[in-house]
Amino acid sequence: MTLKLYFAPGACSFVPHTLLEASGAAFEPVLVKLHKGEQNAPEYRALNPHGQVPVLVDGDAVITQILAIVGYLDAKFPQLGLLPQEPLARARVMETLAWMNNTVHPTFTHVFMPFKYSDKPDVQAELKAYNAQLYRPLLQEIEALVQAAVAQGRPFLGGPQFGPLDAYALTLLRWGGFAGIDPKGFPAAWAHVQKVAQLPPVARAIARERLQLDLTQAG
Amino acid sequence: MTLKLYFAPGACSFVPHTLLEASGAAFEPVLVKLHKGEQNAPEYRALNPHGQVPVLVDGDAVITQILAIVGYLDAKFPQLGLLPQEPLARARVMETLAWMNNTVHPTFTHVFMPFKYSDKPDVQAELKAYNAQLYRPLLQEIEALVQAAVAQGRPFLGGPQFGPLDAYALTLLRWGGFAGIDPKGFPAAWAHVQKVAQLPPVARAIARERLQLDLTQAG
Ligand SMILES: N[C@@H](CCC(=O)N[C@@H](CS)C(=O)NCC(=O)O)C(=O)O
Ligand SMILES: N[C@@H](CCC(=O)N[C@@H](CS)C(=O)NCC(=O)O)C(=O)O
Repeated sequence: MTLKLYFAPGACSFVPHTLLEASGAAFEPVLVKLHKGEQNAPEYRALNPHGQVPVLVDGDAVITQILAIVGYLDAKFPQLGLLPQEPLARARVMETLAWMNNTVHPTFTHVFMPFKYSDKPDVQAELKAYNAQLYRPLLQEIEALVQAAVAQGRPFLGGPQFGPLDAYALTLLRWGGFAGIDPKGFPAAWAHVQKVAQLPPVARAIARERLQLDLTQAG
Repeated sequence: MTLKLYFAPGACSFVPHTLLEASGAAFEPVLVKLHKGEQNAPEYRALNPHGQVPVLVDGDAVITQILAIVGYLDAKFPQLGLLPQEPLARARVMETLAWMNNTVHPTFTHVFMPFKYSDKPDVQAELKAYNAQLYRPLLQEIEALVQAAVAQGRPFLGGPQFGPLDAYALTLLRWGGFAGIDPKGFPAAWAHVQKVAQLPPVARAIARERLQLDLTQAG
């Protein structure tokens, strides 16, 4: 098969996973067990030297980084309208996508993988606690983004169609549960996540990854 | 004037600063004194609630995030060829740009502004030291990217024309100096930075920002 996605259940690879499902194209999902360190195996490092998911393979091309993958899929499947074509509207979506990717996501990484930033256990414990506190207002910003979309009659965060912002918002809100942050504390965002989760392509990705959306509920 | 760029000398706003200079379009550069906390003044927060540079203003539109600004400028000034049009080549550039923006840049932020990640002075000191060590191999990756470009006969990191990767590489290598990392330890990258610095638009941005490229040299 030409298209392959290396993903890990519940990881940020959920974003391209849903977009590929939405495309209707055949693709091979390849599960990488991060908790077993498969991302650090030599074969995987040969594919992505940074040892991370997602990786999109299209024939001979190997593409990493969510922002690059999203742009590539938008060009490959223009009918999906993953990103607006009009430059200002596109910049608006890219602005939020970049912020999720360079600010919200890394703040969570400090909570989930504090060993990326320090080799000292006590420093790691401090990072975990402090950044969990920083994460809450970031989810509040996502709540405000969803409220604005609702107020403006936009069914999805990036416009009339499901796109990367919706999938990333779901992932980031879900991650909050690992830090004990109840997603129901962000009612507009939580309602949006549940709506998005019911779209057939998103539901298929959720089923393949066996995701529970609210991690603060007994599973 | 329609176009305005809010920038701080030596900050990541150097990337759009050089691209605007390259465009030949008239723009108003607005200096934000980060060391005086001007990014946190209410008027600035009204423009960018995240209190950061760069901010690009084009008429009524206010755009933040380097990745969004680069895409917007590419669409506005297609003659510059800031990003390749062919989807895979474009994904290649976006992949490196996203990595610089979400990995290299934030690693440096741990060194330069550790108080963003912890309110405890001892934790901040640990973050500073540990992340300075992480920064060095990231600059080594930039060295490898420049070596690959040279080997493939590409005059710039993104292809035949000067673009955002070249400006970001200059900024990131220069920042290393704050962590005591000698840019001359990355010979290909350092040669590239000096070549890029001599391009007239880049030289104008450097002059406006009064930048010294090698901060490990007595100024
Ligand atoms: N900047 C990357 C981030 C990728 C990333 O953070 N991946 C995480 C999962 S969400 C990962 O693979 N972590 C495994 C590890 O770092 O060992 C992107 O945008 O694709
Ligand atoms: N993700 C942002 C990062 C912007 C950023 O880090 N700006 C820094 C300067 S390099 C800043 O304004 N810092 C001031 C502060 O945080 O107080 C982007 O890509 O534009």
